[in-house]
Amino acid sequence: MNHAIRKSNDLGTFEHYESSVRSYCRSFPTKFHRASGYQMWDVEGKSYIDFFAGAGALNYGHNPPEMKKKLINYLMEDGISHTLDMASEAKEAFLVQFNKAILKPRGLNYKVMFPGPTGTNSVESALKLARKVTGRQTIMSFTNAFHGMTLGALAVTGNKFKRKGAGVPLNHAVSMPYDGYMGANTDTLAYIESYLKDSGSGISLPAAVIVETLQGEGGINVASNEWLTGLSEICKRYGMFLIVDDVQMGCGRTGSFFSFERCGIVPDIVCMSKSIGGYGLPMAITLIKPELDQWSPGEHNGTFRGNNLAFITATEALSYWETNQFAEDIAAKGALLRNELDEIVAKFPELKGEARGIGMMQGIAFEPGIAERISIAAFERGLIMETSGTDSEVIKIMPPLMIDRDGLMEGLLLLKNSVENVVDNKNTVLSH
Amino acid sequence: MNHAIRKSNDLGTFEHYESSVRSYCRSFPTKFHRASGYQMWDVEGKSYIDFFAGAGALNYGHNPPEMKKKLINYLMEDGISHTLDMASEAKEAFLVQFNKAILKPRGLNYKVMFPGPTGTNSVESALKLARKVTGRQTIMSFTNAFHGMTLGALAVTGNKFKRKGAGVPLNHAVSMPYDGYMGANTDTLAYIESYLKDSGSGISLPAAVIVETLQGEGGINVASNEWLTGLSEICKRYGMFLIVDDVQMGCGRTGSFFSFERCGIVPDIVCMSKSIGGYGLPMAITLIKPELDQWSPGEHNGTFRGNNLAFITATEALSYWETNQFAEDIAAKGALLRNELDEIVAKFPELKGEARGIGMMQGIAFEPGIAERISIAAFERGLIMETSGTDSEVIKIMPPLMIDRDGLMEGLLLLKNSVENVVDNKNTVLSH
Amino acid sequence: MNHAIRKSNDLGTFEHYESSVRSYCRSFPTKFHRASGYQMWDVEGKSYIDFFAGAGALNYGHNPPEMKKKLINYLMEDGISHTLDMASEAKEAFLVQFNKAILKPRGLNYKVMFPGPTGTNSVESALKLARKVTGRQTIMSFTNAFHGMTLGALAVTGNKFKRKGAGVPLNHAVSMPYDGYMGANTDTLAYIESYLKDSGSGISLPAAVIVETLQGEGGINVASNEWLTGLSEICKRYGMFLIVDDVQMGCGRTGSFFSFERCGIVPDIVCMSKSIGGYGLPMAITLIKPELDQWSPGEHNGTFRGNNLAFITATEALSYWETNQFAEDIAAKGALLRNELDEIVAKFPELKGEARGIGMMQGIAFEPGIAERISIAAFERGLIMETSGTDSEVIKIMPPLMIDRDGLMEGLLLLKNSVENVVDNKNTVLSH
Amino acid sequence: MNHAIRKSNDLGTFEHYESSVRSYCRSFPTKFHRASGYQMWDVEGKSYIDFFAGAGALNYGHNPPEMKKKLINYLMEDGISHTLDMASEAKEAFLVQFNKAILKPRGLNYKVMFPGPTGTNSVESALKLARKVTGRQTIMSFTNAFHGMTLGALAVTGNKFKRKGAGVPLNHAVSMPYDGYMGANTDTLAYIESYLKDSGSGISLPAAVIVETLQGEGGINVASNEWLTGLSEICKRYGMFLIVDDVQMGCGRTGSFFSFERCGIVPDIVCMSKSIGGYGLPMAITLIKPELDQWSPGEHNGTFRGNNLAFITATEALSYWETNQFAEDIAAKGALLRNELDEIVAKFPELKGEARGIGMMQGIAFEPGIAERISIAAFERGLIMETSGTDSEVIKIMPPLMIDRDGLMEGLLLLKNSVENVVDNKNTVLSH
Repeated sequence: MNHAIRKSNDLGTFEHYESSVRSYCRSFPTKFHRASGYQMWDVEGKSYIDFFAGAGALNYGHNPPEMKKKLINYLMEDGISHTLDMASEAKEAFLVQFNKAILKPRGLNYKVMFPGPTGTNSVESALKLARKVTGRQTIMSFTNAFHGMTLGALAVTGNKFKRKGAGVPLNHAVSMPYDGYMGANTDTLAYIESYLKDSGSGISLPAAVIVETLQGEGGINVASNEWLTGLSEICKRYGMFLIVDDVQMGCGRTGSFFSFERCGIVPDIVCMSKSIGGYGLPMAITLIKPELDQWSPGEHNGTFRGNNLAFITATEALSYWETNQFAEDIAAKGALLRNELDEIVAKFPELKGEARGIGMMQGIAFEPGIAERISIAAFERGLIMETSGTDSEVIKIMPPLMIDRDGLMEGLLLLKNSVENVVDNKNTVLSH
Repeated sequence: MNHAIRKSNDLGTFEHYESSVRSYCRSFPTKFHRASGYQMWDVEGKSYIDFFAGAGALNYGHNPPEMKKKLINYLMEDGISHTLDMASEAKEAFLVQFNKAILKPRGLNYKVMFPGPTGTNSVESALKLARKVTGRQTIMSFTNAFHGMTLGALAVTGNKFKRKGAGVPLNHAVSMPYDGYMGANTDTLAYIESYLKDSGSGISLPAAVIVETLQGEGGINVASNEWLTGLSEICKRYGMFLIVDDVQMGCGRTGSFFSFERCGIVPDIVCMSKSIGGYGLPMAITLIKPELDQWSPGEHNGTFRGNNLAFITATEALSYWETNQFAEDIAAKGALLRNELDEIVAKFPELKGEARGIGMMQGIAFEPGIAERISIAAFERGLIMETSGTDSEVIKIMPPLMIDRDGLMEGLLLLKNSVENVVDNKNTVLSH
Repeated sequence: MNHAIRKSNDLGTFEHYESSVRSYCRSFPTKFHRASGYQMWDVEGKSYIDFFAGAGALNYGHNPPEMKKKLINYLMEDGISHTLDMASEAKEAFLVQFNKAILKPRGLNYKVMFPGPTGTNSVESALKLARKVTGRQTIMSFTNAFHGMTLGALAVTGNKFKRKGAGVPLNHAVSMPYDGYMGANTDTLAYIESYLKDSGSGISLPAAVIVETLQGEGGINVASNEWLTGLSEICKRYGMFLIVDDVQMGCGRTGSFFSFERCGIVPDIVCMSKSIGGYGLPMAITLIKPELDQWSPGEHNGTFRGNNLAFITATEALSYWETNQFAEDIAAKGALLRNELDEIVAKFPELKGEARGIGMMQGIAFEPGIAERISIAAFERGLIMETSGTDSEVIKIMPPLMIDRDGLMEGLLLLKNSVENVVDNKNTVLSH
Repeated sequence: MNHAIRKSNDLGTFEHYESSVRSYCRSFPTKFHRASGYQMWDVEGKSYIDFFAGAGALNYGHNPPEMKKKLINYLMEDGISHTLDMASEAKEAFLVQFNKAILKPRGLNYKVMFPGPTGTNSVESALKLARKVTGRQTIMSFTNAFHGMTLGALAVTGNKFKRKGAGVPLNHAVSMPYDGYMGANTDTLAYIESYLKDSGSGISLPAAVIVETLQGEGGINVASNEWLTGLSEICKRYGMFLIVDDVQMGCGRTGSFFSFERCGIVPDIVCMSKSIGGYGLPMAITLIKPELDQWSPGEHNGTFRGNNLAFITATEALSYWETNQFAEDIAAKGALLRNELDEIVAKFPELKGEARGIGMMQGIAFEPGIAERISIAAFERGLIMETSGTDSEVIKIMPPLMIDRDGLMEGLLLLKNSVENVVDNKNTVLSH
């Protein structure tokens, strides 16, 4: 069997050798080879515009040149690659730069934990710590939340299909309605607070609340500033820790480095991963208010806590945040994006689309079935774009943040063509 | 504050900015910079012989030249770095080579799952799958087992301190006595089977048994071939899946690629990580018998499943296994190592040492307190060597497998000096 | 120490010998001796009107003469007392009469299970069965619900203090808002249904919903007929079993034998205890739709399933239900009671009372602190009356159903005096 | 349908109206009517010798005359029947007499808790309290243990069939090998202690150990005095509470009032029910060392805590214990019983019987299948006798303790005939 070594888009190797759990290769059925900035190429040389950005791990684009240079240099000079949580020069540089470029300018003094290189690992560490410090067990999470696939993180994730995968009951968590879940006119915080203050509500006082300020996987649901501020106040009032999961929404995705900057809250714990490594390399950090940093040495650990290649690129990535320029660019491109999405919504009223999101995390919700067909049409046209939401009813537009105006417009043109195509086919089907 | 940018061993940055959870930087208090093969250098240029090998993630040594070359080339040509579980050329090459060099020659036909880039992630995926396929919930694990830090993996880990870190009860697991746990004369399999066959034993039939063939973190406890074979038979008899956690013991650590080759069993599921990536880069795979590969697409996922840089080095690493040479070398060095350890044990009878382990996973158990002092003395002499076991009572010798005879003997000399030093100080203390 | 055998109200014996867990003897600090109908006498001969009725276990009053006669006859002729779940003549007579007087006239064909002689035991059996038949684990329960003190029943009970007593996390239950919990204008069923239909809500499909049609312990909260009917429809729509806990509200307390007759729903499982035994004797039954009666023999058991003395009185008690007279009497007395409560509310507007309840399960909610003082004043005046609700903010009026008009008016007069007394003292306090 | 009111052994009523969960009526398929001492009569007047004693609830026999007299008097004078945990004269008398006749002479000063009228309720209260006081969650229980059917008690019960009935995972418990479980030559305490002292064993320090001194349901397994004493010492050494479940073995069943008197240990908590009420009436108590009585008022409650009819008979029952006579009688009859059982074992060597038990809790273990056939043959001959053990392989002989020598010998004669009959049939079958 030598089919696999041909440079072709034959996916037989994956069908033969890989587990049936694989998924994105089914949505984007080609074999990728090279990538740069907002573009990807498959083995046959076909290029794609990337409106997916590694599910948020490639905010700075594919293989950003400055990071690449640093990375190759580090490799060339035999910089140490793997250090667990030993001290290394590369790690020190990251810590210093993270403080200088990110924490200090924002008046924050979080301790940095390296919990293992994935988002779910950061979430697990955050939940452990909140439980340890409070001595309580329940975590409050939200409808349509997504926090990860390991058992602790899965217990605070809303998705029924993913939860069922656990194979055991997922406990010690209580799922509350996210902002807007009960309709625009219902204040879900009032509901949440009634459960907390009422000693007959059937739930224990949670150790912490874990929240995404904008739910990406859950369908691009934006929590309002008022809701987030109110939630933060409830946390203080009841002595619960506020954990913001900024794994996908952090690193500038919604416009600022931390997604919660827009509403001025200061979480007790922040989970980061995905783009924190800068180059798509596995890395995660958990930020902890100093007074909560009550870990014993080694109480949480992991073999790949010390991914020095990622520290090199992560440090370089932070230079994007030394001035306001990057944030301003995201805002401008986000506005442009919203404009274009509104236009699409307006142009195809029969699709009953609803533009959603902020910054470079936007999308359009459609009736079930539409979004997936648009995504397929887009792939055929050279655009990588995922769907999200419970019923995959939302197209999710999250290009690399460094995409230029031309790239953005080119991708949006492909999107429009794809929508048009879906509409046409729909009409065709209907007219027969 | 500019202390952190000096090239010195000042660890102030870590003390100021990093969480108190950090641990190895306390045992090896220097700042590492460069590494090659079995050697590491700190920022002041001091060199260390590495008898730790990244806790098993660096079986092929630091920055192995062939892998480095492939990695740099891939980076230079803008090879795609991050692909989730999309198909990529680099991933295909790994799958093909893994089949050719590893599975096929051993008559195995596992499906390969990429569960996220860490060992704990592989364990979580294995437990999920066993529970899904059987519809049962309990997992049988063993005393002194170590399987990871996320909630699912932690539930099958023996260590009390780590377990307590969970902050919630760890359930759906039953801890049974490992080979030798109840003394050399007690057959723990008989005990285990009595619990399984007796309908009054108070435990449900487990979905699976998860086992390390040699417990590294647990104190270098070797399960005998008979015990492993017997366990495998019990699994078949009762319809439980056998999961071998080869995260640390795989990739040649005990002499063969898979640690279970020595006893001829074929697990239903195998967890691998650490050295599978070859270069210390985060990567993990879960091997699944085809008939158990009942995952739905995306039922378990993770952002860093597609670490293509690791695929590049992982593929290259497998060339070590194309002939028998590597395995033979490990066997020879393992024999040498055991010889030397026996000599140390014999030379210092007052320490009541007991040599343990197989292949390049060996150590000496001492009375409590001794091993840690030896480890400290070793570090001072330029040898990186960890302890393991419940009371850190075992020195754990796991050099990179590629270490040459000279390097091994040099490290062992440092070890002997360290032991001597501890003995002398002990005697000094005692003589006063 | 012989203080305990004096016929006096000295409670020293209880203070010396009984656990600190005792509670009602603190609210009603006297030593009871004799009782008849709606009256109780303490050892000093003081009489009390009973507006408490053994928390619902004495709907037919204390020592009802016809039951007493049957009971004494049975004892005299050496009728068998204890039979586990062997067949006995007394049990047969109960089964026959229960079918004839209760089930058949209502068109019901429940199977009768004897789960052990307490309400919590009936609830545990109902939850077990629902989980067995559906293969699902979660039970939906409601805010302010009360279902019992053993671990399974406690998990579906809302009260925080009682739940904390478990000492372990209470899982496999989800607490949803009862009718009216979110204010009169919010339809809690809509909220519940959104959680069920949304696959991102974070809760699994429950095996069953357990509900009280009127929450007694929870503060005399009445679910409307529409809400109960809607809940029943949701259960059907989603394939969840509907369990009505009629332990306290059954046996005529709200006007009909089953509390759910007022809204026409037919639960899948009904839990009964308290007054089912007729004479305050421990007995419970679980009613099960025949198609759900999938128990294996002995799958749930208990030593006191076969309390034949209770079967004797229970059978006799059912004769109350052979005509409509008893239900009509309850309705008439309930109306009278509501009238009087409304009058009290109107007369003391400064107390901001709110009359609640239906049938002979009524009360008045006050601002916190008031109800307990009224209860104390009532006891001093010879009226036994409990409080309920999260903050004991509700006086709970549940006389034996057989109380006559004179008894009811006499008790209400004592109640009015007590309220007046509390108001006077309050004013006195305020005027200083 | 009038089949049910005939005085016949037709069990149609039960088949039509009662749940399929019923079990003893299947083993003893007749309809009981009257009972006295060690005899029971069915509706057709057939008499049975009772070697079952209500599963231990009828230690004083059926309808003991002195208790019956007191009970009828109490009913005649309208003594209060149901009091929850209010103070009553009948309850006071019990507390005083329990202290005088039981606790004081044994130098014990337990506080008495009334947890609800069943054994499982007592066990639930004991587990709650141990968890509350220690702040720990795990309970250590034993293989083949039986503690009850509600969720907390079921979690510490060994039987797989009963456990499965829970429908949810049973957690917070660890099942350890009972005395003799691993064969006569293995010291299970050593095994247990290794799990406790080893910080890598995978189990948390339990809050308490719950144990039966002799396992009745589990197959008449007697724990030796040395084992029980050793267990008690382990509890002290590790700060775990020792809970003795004396629900079935207490009240004289094994020779002394408390079953643990034979080995001199003093449990921290004792669970009692079954015969504590004296007349087969539902009643339970939990005995608590004063320093552990840290309940808040009402933290555990239950409607039928105050079963005054049971208090009346319970108080009278304690007069059996005012002298040593009763204990001496049990010892004598127990010795006689053992003699006879040994004889049966010797007479039928082909059955490979093994006599087990102490006091009036004895039996013979056979190969699977034999015991059940003996039980059936015995019923046909007028002897009520149950089987126990995982595979119902043990005939369980537990007559009322008050049985006289004649009754005992008569029952044993029926037993011998039954065994003979089974042997004959077996031989007949074999000879064909």
